[in-house]
Amino acid sequence: MEPARLIEYARLHWDDSITPDDPLVVRLRDGILSGSRSALAAGITLVESTHPSKRAQGSHLLAAVLTAQKKRFEEKGPSSLIFRIGISGSPGVGKSSFIEALGNELTVNQKKKIAVLTIDPSSITTGGSVLGDLTRMQNLARNPNAFIRQSPSSGSLGGVTRGIHEAIVLCEGAGYDAVIIETVGVGQSEVSVSEMSDMFCLLLSPAHGDELQGVKRGIMEQSDLLVVTKADGDLERTARLTQMEYVSALKYMRPRSPDWRPVVMTASIYKSETIREVSKTMDNFWNTAIKTGLLIERRNEQLTKWIWTHVHDEIMAVFKRHPEVMRRAPILESDVMNGKMTPGWAAETLLRTFFGL
Amino acid sequence: MEPARLIEYARLHWDDSITPDDPLVVRLRDGILSGSRSALAAGITLVESTHPSKRAQGSHLLAAVLTAQKKRFEEKGPSSLIFRIGISGSPGVGKSSFIEALGNELTVNQKKKIAVLTIDPSSITTGGSVLGDLTRMQNLARNPNAFIRQSPSSGSLGGVTRGIHEAIVLCEGAGYDAVIIETVGVGQSEVSVSEMSDMFCLLLSPAHGDELQGVKRGIMEQSDLLVVTKADGDLERTARLTQMEYVSALKYMRPRSPDWRPVVMTASIYKSETIREVSKTMDNFWNTAIKTGLLIERRNEQLTKWIWTHVHDEIMAVFKRHPEVMRRAPILESDVMNGKMTPGWAAETLLRTFFGL
Repeated sequence: MEPARLIEYARLHWDDSITPDDPLVVRLRDGILSGSRSALAAGITLVESTHPSKRAQGSHLLAAVLTAQKKRFEEKGPSSLIFRIGISGSPGVGKSSFIEALGNELTVNQKKKIAVLTIDPSSITTGGSVLGDLTRMQNLARNPNAFIRQSPSSGSLGGVTRGIHEAIVLCEGAGYDAVIIETVGVGQSEVSVSEMSDMFCLLLSPAHGDELQGVKRGIMEQSDLLVVTKADGDLERTARLTQMEYVSALKYMRPRSPDWRPVVMTASIYKSETIREVSKTMDNFWNTAIKTGLLIERRNEQLTKWIWTHVHDEIMAVFKRHPEVMRRAPILESDVMNGKMTPGWAAETLLRTFFGL
Repeated sequence: MEPARLIEYARLHWDDSITPDDPLVVRLRDGILSGSRSALAAGITLVESTHPSKRAQGSHLLAAVLTAQKKRFEEKGPSSLIFRIGISGSPGVGKSSFIEALGNELTVNQKKKIAVLTIDPSSITTGGSVLGDLTRMQNLARNPNAFIRQSPSSGSLGGVTRGIHEAIVLCEGAGYDAVIIETVGVGQSEVSVSEMSDMFCLLLSPAHGDELQGVKRGIMEQSDLLVVTKADGDLERTARLTQMEYVSALKYMRPRSPDWRPVVMTASIYKSETIREVSKTMDNFWNTAIKTGLLIERRNEQLTKWIWTHVHDEIMAVFKRHPEVMRRAPILESDVMNGKMTPGWAAETLLRTFFGL
C-alpha cells in the first residue's frame, strides 16, 4: 500500500494552514486563562476533535496554555498545579454521590474550583450513560465553581483516555485547583485512570466477608486511598469490618510508592465530617507528594508512558482498520484455532499484509 | 518512507522459492514425527531464525507438523496433546531443582517424555544465564526422555516468547507428553508464560510473615497451583505456615476459572512423595481441564491473544527501529517532560513521522 493510501485510514490528517495566531485559538486561550467555563468547554471539544483543522487548532491551543501554565509554575510553584484525583469503584458503590459530596466540601467549604472528568468505556459500545451523567450530580452541576464533563463517547478505550490528558491541561490552565477523574465501569479503564492521576482513590462497598468483592489485585495495588462508602446507619458496622479486612489485605500488597502507605477510611455522604476527613487525607497526600518529589516523579513517569500508550493504541487502530488486514484477520484466526498455523505465523502474515510485502 | 524502504527494517523478508517439499523441511518433519531429539533441536533453531529462507522453511515445517498432529488428535484424542505446564517463581526459590525433581518423577517413575523450555528475559540484556542453564539440570539433561532447551537470547521479550509457541508445537509433534515452560526472572514474562501454558504453577519460598514476599497479585491470580518449596528439615514448619498464609491470601483472589480452584501445596526435592503429590495434582488439573472443556477454551483464547500480541510486539519493534522515529522520540519525550507539548500530541507527531505524513 502506498503511503498516500495509508494516510486515508490512518486519520492523521493535519491542516498546516492553521497558525498559532488563529483567531479561535487566541480567543479560547484568553478565555481559558481567564477562567471562562464556556471557553474551557469549547477548548476540550476542540482537542478531542478528529477534524484536520480542529486538530491543528487544538494543538496550538494546548501549546499556548502549556506555555502560560509553565510561566505560572515558575512564578507560583506547586500551588499553580491542578491536583489530579483519580476515583474508581464498582457500580453501586455510590461513586456519583461520593464525588458530589466531596465536590461540595471542596467548592463550598474550602472555596476551591474543581473539575470532574468522567471516563465511561461502556459508552463506547452502548452509547449510554451520557445522559445519565448530567442528572447524576445535579447539585455539583449547578455549582459555578465546579466544571463537569463526560469523556468522548466514541473510539477505543485508548481513544477515550486520549483526550483526558489534554482536558486536564486545559483545566489546569483555567485555574482549577483539583480535577476528579472518575472512571465508570471496570477493568483496564481503572488502571488507565490510576496512570493519569496524582492520587488514585478506590471506593468500596461495605460488604464484610464477601471475599473483598472480587476487586482485582492490580487495582488495589494502584490505590493510594481506599474509602468504604455508605458508613452510616445499619451499614456503619459492616463498613468498619470491611475497612479492617482491607487493612489486612493491604499487608499482602506491595505499596505503590515508598513515600506513601495506602490509607483505608470509611465515609458517609450524610456525615460531612467523614467527607472532610477524606479531603484532609487527600491534602496530606498532596503535600507529601510535593515534598518528597513523588508528584513530579509520578507525573514524569506517566507522561513518557502515555506517549507510548497513545502510539500503541493508534498504531493498532490503524492496523486493524487496514482493509486487507480486516479481510484476512478472521480467516487467519480461524486457521490458528484449527491448528493449521501458529499464532506467530498468522501475525507475520498480517504484518506482511499491512506493510504491503 | 516508501514501502520498499519499510521492508528493510521491518525484517519481514520471506523467501518465496521455498516449497513444502523442500528437502530440509521433509527431513526435519520426518525426524520430529518419529521422535528424534536432534531433528527437534534443529527444527526449533529453524523456527527461531530470522533469515528469510530459514523463516520460510520453518513455517513449512510447522505446517507439516501441525497437519500430522491434527490427524493424530483425530485418531487418539486428548492423549495426543502435550500438557503445557508453566512454572515460575522468584530467584532463589529453587526452580531448577524443583523442575529436575519433577522431571525425574515424570520420566523415570512415570515413563513419560518431557521437554523443558526456559524463557530468560535477562539473557536479552546480559547475554548470561545460558551457560548456567546447561549445568543447572544436569541429571535431567542426561535423561534420554527429557529435552531441555533455552529460549533464544536475542530480541525483545516479545521476541523471546515468540518462538516458544512454535517450539511447543514441534515438541507436541515429537510425541512428548508434557512440556515445562519455565520462566526465569520476574514481571511480564511470568504473565506471558501463564498465557501460553495449560496450567500455571507458581513456586514460593518458605518465608512466613514476609508479607507474601511481595509477589505481584497479578501473578497469583494467574496461578492454578502454588508450591511452597524447601519443605524439609528446619524449614518444614515455616513452609506449612507459608502454605496457610497463601491459602488465606487466595480467599482474596478471583479464581482464574470456575472449573478449578487454585491449590497450595508444600514440597521438598528430598522427599519424592511430595513431588509425586504435586504431579498428581497436575494430573488432576489436566483431567479436569479436558473434561470441563477448560483446556480447549484456554488454548483457543490464548491462540487469538497471541496472534495480536505478536502483531503488537513486532509492529512496535518496527516502529521503534524507524530511523526518523529513533531520532525524534527522545526530543519529543523531553518536550513533553518540559511541558511544551502533551503526550497525545507527541504520539501523533511520532505516528506522522512513521507513516511519512
